[in-house]
Amino acid sequence: MSRFWSPLVHRLTPYVAGEQPVVQDLVKLNTNENPYGPSPRAIAAIRAEAGDGLRLYPDPHATILRQAIAVGLGVQADQVFVGNGSDEVLAHAFQGLLNHDGPLLFPDITYSFYPVYCGLYGIAYREIPIDAAMQVDVDDYAGPCGAIILPNPNAPTGSALPLSAIRRLVEAHPDQVVVVDEAYVDFGGESAVPLVADHPNLLVIQTFSKSRSLAGLRVGFAIGQRHLIEALERVKDSFNSYPLDRLAIVGAVASYEDTGWFEETRGRVMASRQRLFEALNELGFEILPSAANFVFARHPAHRGADLAKGLRAQSVIVRHFAKPRIEDFLRISIGTDAQCDRLIAALKTLVA
Amino acid sequence: MSRFWSPLVHRLTPYVAGEQPVVQDLVKLNTNENPYGPSPRAIAAIRAEAGDGLRLYPDPHATILRQAIAVGLGVQADQVFVGNGSDEVLAHAFQGLLNHDGPLLFPDITYSFYPVYCGLYGIAYREIPIDAAMQVDVDDYAGPCGAIILPNPNAPTGSALPLSAIRRLVEAHPDQVVVVDEAYVDFGGESAVPLVADHPNLLVIQTFSKSRSLAGLRVGFAIGQRHLIEALERVKDSFNSYPLDRLAIVGAVASYEDTGWFEETRGRVMASRQRLFEALNELGFEILPSAANFVFARHPAHRGADLAKGLRAQSVIVRHFAKPRIEDFLRISIGTDAQCDRLIAALKTLVA
Repeated sequence: MSRFWSPLVHRLTPYVAGEQPVVQDLVKLNTNENPYGPSPRAIAAIRAEAGDGLRLYPDPHATILRQAIAVGLGVQADQVFVGNGSDEVLAHAFQGLLNHDGPLLFPDITYSFYPVYCGLYGIAYREIPIDAAMQVDVDDYAGPCGAIILPNPNAPTGSALPLSAIRRLVEAHPDQVVVVDEAYVDFGGESAVPLVADHPNLLVIQTFSKSRSLAGLRVGFAIGQRHLIEALERVKDSFNSYPLDRLAIVGAVASYEDTGWFEETRGRVMASRQRLFEALNELGFEILPSAANFVFARHPAHRGADLAKGLRAQSVIVRHFAKPRIEDFLRISIGTDAQCDRLIAALKTLVA
Repeated sequence: MSRFWSPLVHRLTPYVAGEQPVVQDLVKLNTNENPYGPSPRAIAAIRAEAGDGLRLYPDPHATILRQAIAVGLGVQADQVFVGNGSDEVLAHAFQGLLNHDGPLLFPDITYSFYPVYCGLYGIAYREIPIDAAMQVDVDDYAGPCGAIILPNPNAPTGSALPLSAIRRLVEAHPDQVVVVDEAYVDFGGESAVPLVADHPNLLVIQTFSKSRSLAGLRVGFAIGQRHLIEALERVKDSFNSYPLDRLAIVGAVASYEDTGWFEETRGRVMASRQRLFEALNELGFEILPSAANFVFARHPAHRGADLAKGLRAQSVIVRHFAKPRIEDFLRISIGTDAQCDRLIAALKTLVA
């Protein structure tokens, strides 16, 4: 606390990111990183770009990246916004598109950065409880509001809504912006991008951090009709002209265009998820159906905090949220099969 | 304009960055980039980091970079804040430290992003005219205010204040935050970092974009006492946990530690500045004294807009601001001697 702080700073409750510990032989299943590396083409592109050209500013519009994404998704380049990780894209969306009269709605169990953004930008919000099966029910979002945001698949539950439910939600709120945060969509969800053409109120956000294995490069993007993208551009150009560096731009382009690598690695993650699901099931865990690169599971006989602590003692880190309704769950990122086996072996010592 | 925009977006007047044109054989002297490439050690570090590790999130605290900067400047690592270019650091400072009762003060001729940040965060401000010689006079900042920001050296004039003047300003406002934006300080200015230890209200901001030749990597930083840095961290952790990617962190560390490269290249830039000064003088230009990697000059017989246009026709790009008091000036970045010669040759055809 300091009298030099802007009044806002006193009120902030910052987000707490998952740990990035540096420990030998750690099985790190706590921040939903991809166990497989990025496309070798992305690495080659980054190495080629690392040279004297770094003395020059990047393209402030990241044109080649927006074009690559547009080609991949069948939209126009000016319907693509890119940012320094999807967290930055989300921040701009909260400030530029989700701050209206009436509360912003999002699930009570969801990405815990959402209320933090609301605090940063002074946005009133209302949390809509997920149902008894821990699923989002879009009909619970009926009634007046300022805007809506929800992840699909949701985090940390991993549960996905079908495209028909997203369409129903978007069509039920033609005068409100609906943001669908698709950080995990490539692991089994249905993307809402095909709805963008017909829905001027829909913004879809994705990231290179998960299915593209580039969490360390910081690239995210949004897809929407031109007027929504323009709002994000106006905020970005009032904040930082050059959010993406030269290496991130070329690396993301090469990654995006390497569809073979993308398909192979996400296929392996989904196969490992099924294998992990079965192993956890055998240990007596209740596991929510997951369309993401993590599972959300609890054991009827053990507290979540105890299990997380017991795993950590065996150098296996998962994410535990000390929050009502989910305090007995563990969010476990999908690692390689070998990492999942280490997790299962450690859990056996705890729940046997 | 769209009904889906947050009310704020309608009011924004975004910053317009200098062009990044892609033209063959262009002499690009418009965005104050360094004509020499970054440290070869930085390039090597980036290439070594470009690998499978990019699948993992970066260290959200960029610890090794803050330590390297702290060692270089003789401060503690927790007195260093790093961000995605100094523009992001500035943005967080505006939001977290410069928004108080009473107007923020800054020079009327200065970095044109400052009023944009004020628009983004709803900060009232008052522009203090620079004097007839186009210099900042710190005594003009006396009287009540919410906070103060000024670049030293100033941009786009290039004029520097001595450390004694900065000290007088900081001491005259013990209850207000004073931010000194030292983007250009390494080309002949005196840094205020040594004042930080004794002045709890002083924040100094620097960048890797100019003297470290890394505009394309996006790294900036701030130095201040712990409570000021904490405000920036609270804003950052409410906005984006990981603003610096893995490549930027290792590249900036290696760059910062290569003091030999830094000294050699900034020495060459300063020598070229002197040479350019003399050549412009010979052509009849009035040139402000510069402690930056650019000069600000006007010709008594020619309009600035005409000269900028005439240069562009000869593939030489400089920055021209269509703004009262400075509309007849050109801001010319210091290139290599060969680039400066191309500029001078082009100017000769225009002013002869």
